[in-house]
Amino acid sequence: MTMHGTLANEAVLLHHRPDGLPTPDCFEAVSQSLPALGDGKVRCRTHYISLDPYIRSVIAGNHMGHGIGPGEVVPGETVAEVVASHHPDWPEGTQVRCPGGWQQFSDHLPEALHRLPTGLSRPSLALSVLGMPGLTAFAGMHRLGEVASGDTVVVPAAVGGVGALAGQLGRLAGARTIAITSGEEKCRIAVEELGYSACIDRARDDVAAALSELAPDGVSLYFDLVGDPLLTTVSQQLAVGGRVILCGLMGDYNGAQKTTGPPPGLWIGKRATVKGLVVYDFEHERLEFERRYTPLVEDGSIRANEECHPGLSSAPDAFCRLMRGENTGKVVVELAQAAAS
Amino acid sequence: MTMHGTLANEAVLLHHRPDGLPTPDCFEAVSQSLPALGDGKVRCRTHYISLDPYIRSVIAGNHMGHGIGPGEVVPGETVAEVVASHHPDWPEGTQVRCPGGWQQFSDHLPEALHRLPTGLSRPSLALSVLGMPGLTAFAGMHRLGEVASGDTVVVPAAVGGVGALAGQLGRLAGARTIAITSGEEKCRIAVEELGYSACIDRARDDVAAALSELAPDGVSLYFDLVGDPLLTTVSQQLAVGGRVILCGLMGDYNGAQKTTGPPPGLWIGKRATVKGLVVYDFEHERLEFERRYTPLVEDGSIRANEECHPGLSSAPDAFCRLMRGENTGKVVVELAQAAAS
Repeated sequence: MTMHGTLANEAVLLHHRPDGLPTPDCFEAVSQSLPALGDGKVRCRTHYISLDPYIRSVIAGNHMGHGIGPGEVVPGETVAEVVASHHPDWPEGTQVRCPGGWQQFSDHLPEALHRLPTGLSRPSLALSVLGMPGLTAFAGMHRLGEVASGDTVVVPAAVGGVGALAGQLGRLAGARTIAITSGEEKCRIAVEELGYSACIDRARDDVAAALSELAPDGVSLYFDLVGDPLLTTVSQQLAVGGRVILCGLMGDYNGAQKTTGPPPGLWIGKRATVKGLVVYDFEHERLEFERRYTPLVEDGSIRANEECHPGLSSAPDAFCRLMRGENTGKVVVELAQAAAS
Repeated sequence: MTMHGTLANEAVLLHHRPDGLPTPDCFEAVSQSLPALGDGKVRCRTHYISLDPYIRSVIAGNHMGHGIGPGEVVPGETVAEVVASHHPDWPEGTQVRCPGGWQQFSDHLPEALHRLPTGLSRPSLALSVLGMPGLTAFAGMHRLGEVASGDTVVVPAAVGGVGALAGQLGRLAGARTIAITSGEEKCRIAVEELGYSACIDRARDDVAAALSELAPDGVSLYFDLVGDPLLTTVSQQLAVGGRVILCGLMGDYNGAQKTTGPPPGLWIGKRATVKGLVVYDFEHERLEFERRYTPLVEDGSIRANEECHPGLSSAPDAFCRLMRGENTGKVVVELAQAAAS
């Protein structure tokens, strides 16, 4: 590999769209040659790739009206290093966040590049607790949910990329926080590492009964990351005047059909306020979010709960695990860095 | 009939619970003798009875945890006159609003009695545009919906008790208002009498296509009074950031099952804010509501759209029409007043 000749670019493409839960054979590893770097463009070498559930709908072709098809590189946000540049603002060696996708190298116009927060002990944080999942948690808990002391907050997918910070933001705001996840190990992480007040194991517990016991006065804020059937179950346990943040739909991502929602009469009776969250709307708050939370992550007040997989070839398996709900934290893939560049 | 001997009280009882749409045979007219008036109680003679969709769930036994069974007088809010009193604050001749139900006479403790708004040209207004349906419209449009100039508002059941005022409040706030109702006559009432900007006839028009045409920039406020399938159809036509007030569920009232709601992904994509409305929460605003809107109703700025049925015996038929959506306004029943009392 040389920076000046034709570069080989290891990449993972979508082979075919998944039917239901994705399997590794939906993806295909290839080696492609990189073209010459275009005018004004910047070439980045991927260091970390963020794997996120919304990619499931991107590869289905229907993520908010966008998507990719077979033969295209699987997209994803990355932390990368500039290795060649035709733009003076982005010199070689700069660490950036960019939509690099599942590949070693990616070329971008400067508007697609973002500098990392300053003071990060490891760059992957810019993809997890201080990145898009973190900003999602912040927007949901603070901007839409207006979490406050006295709230009883419920977070499903509680140890995942968004959930892990949502729970911690609730705790830091003085709320009682109840995790919902599956399996003993994830329940342990939720309570011991992430500081939830309690955890419900949906693989084993009766969620409704557990909520009745843990939140006898009702749930005042539910940060929905998964849709039904949990959405309806938790909505039935809302306090009067409870809030619901609609943010994710694990069932829809994997399925062919859009799931229906809870009976509206449920939300009428609870006088609920329900808000749809799309993190892109909060991009203008990202710098302030990074400035405010980087010190809290670095001093350990907030735990960055990452599950890191080594090598680009681990991406398909790691993504399939994520979509089966088996991840124990925000999923990132770390690419080996060339000894010399 | 005498005020001092045993009084005959004509009443309509629930005969059996309806299965689906109610039919007149679900009700039974009887003549009962009134007991002596209890200590501290006030006897009222019914003048007008309000018929409202929520009564359908009351006679099903499941209105927000309450209900009645066969053999009981069908409940309902009434305008009545005090004809005997054991309480000095409520002398004979006082006009009151009270939960009198479908009967000629009803006895109440003073806490169940309310004075009518002052300045009413006809007392039934206290059951319609200046009563509970009116307060519901006010709470939904102003308190939860925060309607404002520039809004595009959609109101289903547009000429009914709640809808008729909701549409007018939208217009008075400077919003563009789109009615949804069924049939030519109700569409005429919506536009010509109630001042909606436009009306969609759901019996004839393709509602989605009509909304696309009438609201090309999307619906910013939907005051839902009927549930699905209209709720999903209109939600698909929401503007980004649109608001939905969940207030009524015509389908649920008549059916045995609770309907599911729209796919949550729809509300996520629209960044919708959805709020459940129960009018009882706004009882503390009623006096101010009456004070503010009585002059507007009396000077004709707001039209009171009532459908008045003569005689207690008309109540079952009128209620069944209401539950089939055939009413052309807020449904009230007017009882003949005795020549001498």
